[in-house]
Amino acid sequence: MKIEAIILSVGDELLIGQTLDTNAHWLSQELDKLGVSIKKRITLPDQEQQMLDALSVSVEGADIVIITGGLGPTKDDKTVKCLAKYFGVKLVLNQMALSHIKAMLQKRGRSLKPSHIKQVELPENAVLLQNNVGTASGMWFESNNTVIISLPGVPYEMRHIMAEVGFNKIKSSFRLPIILHKHINTYGVGESQIAAIIHDWELKLPVHIKLAYLPGLGEVQLRLSLIGSAQEQLAMEAHNKVQELVELLGDVVYSVDNESLECVIGKYLAHNNLTITMAESCTGGYLSHLITSVPGCSRYFLGSIIAYQNEIKIQKLGVSEATIANHGAVSAETVEEMANQVKIKFGSDIGLATSGVAGPSGGSPQKPVGTIWIACAMGNKIKSKKLQLTDDRAKNIPLTAKAVLNLLRLEFLSQ
Amino acid sequence: MKIEAIILSVGDELLIGQTLDTNAHWLSQELDKLGVSIKKRITLPDQEQQMLDALSVSVEGADIVIITGGLGPTKDDKTVKCLAKYFGVKLVLNQMALSHIKAMLQKRGRSLKPSHIKQVELPENAVLLQNNVGTASGMWFESNNTVIISLPGVPYEMRHIMAEVGFNKIKSSFRLPIILHKHINTYGVGESQIAAIIHDWELKLPVHIKLAYLPGLGEVQLRLSLIGSAQEQLAMEAHNKVQELVELLGDVVYSVDNESLECVIGKYLAHNNLTITMAESCTGGYLSHLITSVPGCSRYFLGSIIAYQNEIKIQKLGVSEATIANHGAVSAETVEEMANQVKIKFGSDIGLATSGVAGPSGGSPQKPVGTIWIACAMGNKIKSKKLQLTDDRAKNIPLTAKAVLNLLRLEFLSQ
Repeated sequence: MKIEAIILSVGDELLIGQTLDTNAHWLSQELDKLGVSIKKRITLPDQEQQMLDALSVSVEGADIVIITGGLGPTKDDKTVKCLAKYFGVKLVLNQMALSHIKAMLQKRGRSLKPSHIKQVELPENAVLLQNNVGTASGMWFESNNTVIISLPGVPYEMRHIMAEVGFNKIKSSFRLPIILHKHINTYGVGESQIAAIIHDWELKLPVHIKLAYLPGLGEVQLRLSLIGSAQEQLAMEAHNKVQELVELLGDVVYSVDNESLECVIGKYLAHNNLTITMAESCTGGYLSHLITSVPGCSRYFLGSIIAYQNEIKIQKLGVSEATIANHGAVSAETVEEMANQVKIKFGSDIGLATSGVAGPSGGSPQKPVGTIWIACAMGNKIKSKKLQLTDDRAKNIPLTAKAVLNLLRLEFLSQ
Repeated sequence: MKIEAIILSVGDELLIGQTLDTNAHWLSQELDKLGVSIKKRITLPDQEQQMLDALSVSVEGADIVIITGGLGPTKDDKTVKCLAKYFGVKLVLNQMALSHIKAMLQKRGRSLKPSHIKQVELPENAVLLQNNVGTASGMWFESNNTVIISLPGVPYEMRHIMAEVGFNKIKSSFRLPIILHKHINTYGVGESQIAAIIHDWELKLPVHIKLAYLPGLGEVQLRLSLIGSAQEQLAMEAHNKVQELVELLGDVVYSVDNESLECVIGKYLAHNNLTITMAESCTGGYLSHLITSVPGCSRYFLGSIIAYQNEIKIQKLGVSEATIANHGAVSAETVEEMANQVKIKFGSDIGLATSGVAGPSGGSPQKPVGTIWIACAMGNKIKSKKLQLTDDRAKNIPLTAKAVLNLLRLEFLSQ
C-alpha cells in the first residue's frame, strides 16, 4: 500500500516571493527517501479560511498532512488557532512544552515572556514534537487514519524537529516499503555528459531501481533508489550498482557515502597525518570556511591568510613584488607563489591558493570577470589551474573553492 | 478590486524533491510587483486527473491561473492534453508556432523532428505566447473571466516568455492596484520581544497596511505591505510607518533598505574611508566571507588571518604566549589581543576577532560548547563581548560572525 502525503506551506512571505520555499523541497526529498509519496504541495497565505479549507481537503486525500509555518507568537501566525478550530478543541497550556521552553530560556539567560506562554498554548489533542532549537513547538495529531504534523516555518527548526522525532514517528506509524538510497557524488562534469557515459547502463536498470540526477553548483549527485522488501538483498544490489557506476565514471566520483568534498579531503588529511593552510584572495575566506565547517578540522587545519590586497600578498604572504608586477595578481605565477608561501610560512604539508576576478567589476579584456587561478602546493610540487567561470560573484566564490579542493583531491589520487 | 492569481507547478521531479521550484517563487515575486495577489500555489504530479481537478478549482477561485511545466515532447508531459480536455476543444497545428520553431531550428542548423511537430499541436482556443529561447510554446486562454497561462517548466524559457509578452498582456487585461513593500531589518532581539515592543502600534495599523515578521538566524526582518491606488500617498505612508518603527525599535534596526548587515557595514566603511581586517579563530573564514560577499569590498577590506591553532595566534598574529597560557584561547584577553594585533599588523583602521568553542567537541565545564568571545578594535579602543550560543557548529559559526558585525555597527553608532 502506497503511503501518500500532502505538504501545506503557510506564509504570506512565500506567496509574495520574498522567501523561497525550501521547506517543502526538503520535506519532499526526505519523505521520498522514507518511501512516502508526495501527492501534492499547496502554498497558502496566513489566512484562516483558506487554511481550514486546504486542511479539510488534504486530510481527506492523504495519509499524512504536513503543515509548515504560522507558528510564531505574532498576530500573523494562525496555524495553531486553525488547527484547534479544525479539530473543534480548545487551546490548553502544554506543560511539557512550557517546561522545555523555560529550560531553554534559562540556559540562554533570558526570561519567560507572555509571548512565550502564547507559543505553548496548543490544541488539547496535540502530541508535542519537541523543538530543541527554538521556541515554536512541533505538533502531531491523528484524525480518521490521517496524521497531521505542524512544524515551524524556520527551516533550521523544522529540520531539527523532523530529523530528531518526526521521521521516526512516521516510520513507526506506517508500514513503509524498504527503500535504500545510495549517493554517488561527482565533481567536474555536467549532467548531460554523465548521462551520455552511463546511458547503456541506465537503460538496463531493473524497474525497482530508480536513478535521479541532482545537479548542484559545479557538481552532480546521482541517487540510486532501490525499492523492495528484503533489506539484505537490496543492500547487495545497491553495492553492485554503485561499483558499476564508479567503474564507468572513474575519478569524477569523489564519494559514495554522501560526503561533501571538504569532508572527503578532511578524512584523507586526518588519516595521513597531513596539515593544510590556505592563501585566499578571490574566495575571501570561503575556502577556509568550507574546510572549517567539518567538525574535528583542528586536527589538520592550521590557519590561513586572506590576502585580498596586493600589499598583503607581498608583505604578509611573501609573494614577490616582481611576480605581481610582471604577471598580475590573477596569474599562474602569483597563485603558485601564494600556495607555496602559505605552506612555508605556516609550516604545513599542503598549501592551497586562489586568486581571480570574482566580479561583478574588476574585469579587463585580457582577464574578464570569472577569470580565476587556483593552486595546490604539496611537498616540492606545485600545481595550478585556470578557471573561466561566470559573471556572478555569488556563484564564482563557491565554484572556485570547490575547484581547488578538487584539484587537491586529484593530487591525492595521483600519489 | 483585488486581482488574484493561482500558480500550478506541474512535475514529478518537484514532488520527489529533485528540482527546487524556483518558477513559482519567481512568478510570485514578479506578479506581486505588478499588484497581482497570489492566492495559492499548488504543486502537482504529471497526472491527468489531478491536473484537471486542480484546474477546475483554480479557475473558479482566481482571475489568473498560471501553469508551469508539462509542455515537453515526452510521454510524461501532459499539460497540453489536459488543457484541451478541460476546454473541450481539439488540438490543432498552430501555424504561427510552427513557422517560429522552423525559423529557430534553421538558425541553429537543426532540422524539424516529429517531436517538434507534436510541440506545436495546441488547443484550438490557445493564443500563442511566443517562446524565443526554446521549442515549447507559451499559451494564453480566456474562460469565464479567468485568464489561464501555460508556460514551459524550464526556468530560463518561462522567464523569457513572461518578461517579453506575458506580463504586458496581464497589465493590459486587468486594472491592477499598487502594492508597496518596505523591509525593516533588526538584529539582536527575538520575534516575541519585537512583537511586545510594537504591540500597540501594530494594533493601530489601518487595514490596507499589513505587517509580517520574518525571523532568520539571530535576526528578524519586518515587512510592511501597503495596498492602494495612489503611488505617492502610499510612498508617504510607508515612509512614515517605517519612521515610527525605527523610533520604537531604536538601534536594533540596522537597515530600512533590505540590506544585509555586511552590506550596511561595507557602506559605512566605504563612506568613511575606513579599512578593516579580521583575526578569525572559531569562525574559520566565515566572517571574512560575509564581508567579501559584498561587491566592491576591496575598497575597505585588506585581508585576514585565520588563526585556528594557538601557534598561529602567537607566531603569525603576535598574541602573547602568556595571555593564552593564563586565560586560554577562548577569553576576553586573547580575543582583544587578536583584534588589536591584526589591526596593527595589517595596518587597518579596524580589527575584528572571534575565538570560541564552535563544537560539537572541545567544550569543558568552564567553557562549554557555544562559549565564544568576539572583539572589535578601533582607534585605541577595544571592545569585547562573550556569547553563549548553541551546541550546533553549523549555527554557531554564522551567529558569531553576525554578532561581531553587529558589535562593530553599534560602535559606529556610538561614535
